[in-house]
Amino acid sequence: MNLDLPPLKVSGRLDRLRAVVADHADAIVVSDLMSIRWCTGFTGSSALLVVTDDDSTLITDGRYRVQARDEVAAAQSNTIVAIAVQPIVEAVGALGSVETVALEADVLTWAEQRSWEIATEIDLVPTHGLVRELRAVKDVAELARIERAAAIVDTALAEREGLLVAGTTEREMAHALECSMRTGGATGPAYETIVASGPNSALPHARPTDRPFEEGDLVVIDAGSLVDGYRSDMTRTFAIGTPGEDVCRVRDTVMESQAAGVAAVRPGIEAKEIDRVCRSIITDAGYGDAFSHGTGHGVGLDIHELPAVHARSTAILQAGHVITVEPGIYVPALGGCRVEDSVVVTETGCRPLTKFPKPTC
Amino acid sequence: MNLDLPPLKVSGRLDRLRAVVADHADAIVVSDLMSIRWCTGFTGSSALLVVTDDDSTLITDGRYRVQARDEVAAAQSNTIVAIAVQPIVEAVGALGSVETVALEADVLTWAEQRSWEIATEIDLVPTHGLVRELRAVKDVAELARIERAAAIVDTALAEREGLLVAGTTEREMAHALECSMRTGGATGPAYETIVASGPNSALPHARPTDRPFEEGDLVVIDAGSLVDGYRSDMTRTFAIGTPGEDVCRVRDTVMESQAAGVAAVRPGIEAKEIDRVCRSIITDAGYGDAFSHGTGHGVGLDIHELPAVHARSTAILQAGHVITVEPGIYVPALGGCRVEDSVVVTETGCRPLTKFPKPTC
Repeated sequence: MNLDLPPLKVSGRLDRLRAVVADHADAIVVSDLMSIRWCTGFTGSSALLVVTDDDSTLITDGRYRVQARDEVAAAQSNTIVAIAVQPIVEAVGALGSVETVALEADVLTWAEQRSWEIATEIDLVPTHGLVRELRAVKDVAELARIERAAAIVDTALAEREGLLVAGTTEREMAHALECSMRTGGATGPAYETIVASGPNSALPHARPTDRPFEEGDLVVIDAGSLVDGYRSDMTRTFAIGTPGEDVCRVRDTVMESQAAGVAAVRPGIEAKEIDRVCRSIITDAGYGDAFSHGTGHGVGLDIHELPAVHARSTAILQAGHVITVEPGIYVPALGGCRVEDSVVVTETGCRPLTKFPKPTC
Repeated sequence: MNLDLPPLKVSGRLDRLRAVVADHADAIVVSDLMSIRWCTGFTGSSALLVVTDDDSTLITDGRYRVQARDEVAAAQSNTIVAIAVQPIVEAVGALGSVETVALEADVLTWAEQRSWEIATEIDLVPTHGLVRELRAVKDVAELARIERAAAIVDTALAEREGLLVAGTTEREMAHALECSMRTGGATGPAYETIVASGPNSALPHARPTDRPFEEGDLVVIDAGSLVDGYRSDMTRTFAIGTPGEDVCRVRDTVMESQAAGVAAVRPGIEAKEIDRVCRSIITDAGYGDAFSHGTGHGVGLDIHELPAVHARSTAILQAGHVITVEPGIYVPALGGCRVEDSVVVTETGCRPLTKFPKPTC
């Protein structure tokens, strides 16, 4: 299908990376595949990207000989493509005469770091999230894909809402949603779709089972889609039949918390403040211990990326960040409720990308 | 749906792990999530597993408080579950008075290794694949799941074979297959389904596009399904319309190579010998440079696991190993052809788990 979206271009990204690398080392070798994709357009499953002041070299294996050249050219990158059986040895060669090289300490394995030590005398500098920090701010072409991914899930949920009745199993619901996502133009789900009903809804990261929905159940549906590499993330909590008073109280509290969190999003605010806003409403309602996870995270090429939105986050929100706001309350005896939107930070506040109506009591 | 399969039990696995760890260190901390699943039954996305001579502790976060206890109990493991915000600190506590601890150098990141160095005086020993070596040999319950996953794809391909005509797009075919897999009882695809037609078939790792099949195309379909955590892997190459003589020559060569590789599989043989057998037939036919990847890999909880089946593999095949045999020839002007089966090594040879008929000229 024709996606009818502005083309993804990587122009200027390597120079922005060079500017931040300069504070740490003479050059960087990027090993995170999503970061390599962001820098060069390459979508393969095996690569290193060497970025020096003068040039950049994408090192991959024979399976990607043709694809790598095609994708790098399509993204308007001037990165050189090299095919190698021993990528670290090839990378050392491409680094030339640098004295220090930044390596991504959160991505490189300990074994790879040891191989680097054996392969070269160059001083290895552990760095954290240099590309991921840059990736957090989305450009127009990236936002268009995330927004499309979100819209596809909105439509999928609308198409399949009729299945939210007693008797449908969690797995049937998840399957139906994922089929609708693909029909709607997504590559597939952005992550394993969560459909968690009744007691299962009290598990924040449940997988769909063959449990049929029952009257009185809460059903947590956490679904995103994948469009041209970019992901959306949304959660809605539905009730089967007429929910009881205790269920309504939980859902109202989560709704209030989530709305307050979204209302607080604006450039310049600390991400942990969004967590505080959401958490304080849930704590004041007496459910503090039942909100057992962070409030949100960045979304883009990865389903979890920067900025983190939790109590220990040091991030400051910026225009172009795409984050989730997803407080929840999980009570084993009652079930769980989570409400989540993906929003893009704008110059003045934020704009929700996920728009499916939120069920109320 | 009722899977009607023997239950997965982890009994005895930790003692087998302790026996191999003893050659390296006093204890091990497992961080590979699939290895943790194999050891304990836990399927969450965040965990460390501390295994000492006396006990074992699964450390996870608040999201998995209930699920972790349920899954560990269901797998008949006596592992203790601990919830922690700082897993490495918790793991150091669980290690007690050991002097050396094995850490998985291929899984742990460099940053994690640095955190370990700060957190403890215990001597850190880098180890490679200790659990993965054990995981390579499948038990009856594991084989039943891989075999079911393979059978589901056989059925899905049979259901959707009618789509192999000019006009169907790669993406439509992939979508249809994945829907059939789910209807057939799979959790989903085991990996991103490959449907690569015409020129795209010359890319060993192509993603489905909106290209419609055309008369004369080769169509490579590489598909597996996921059943209760276990994966299958199969490739067939179809022709749209009547293939030309050059296409038939390529396909015949790949078929001969793949059949010879499968015929060579038996316990005690070096895995690299399977690669040699497959490669020599393709090289003798003049396509050596066009077979640009290894011959195969283990399959199980991960789609790529031990033993490796390529020219540099040091593995010796054992009964219970499940491996793929998947030679291919990729000619940019003509297209590509790959044929792949997943087979289990038996006492006397091997038994193919993927059974869909192989198209011939």
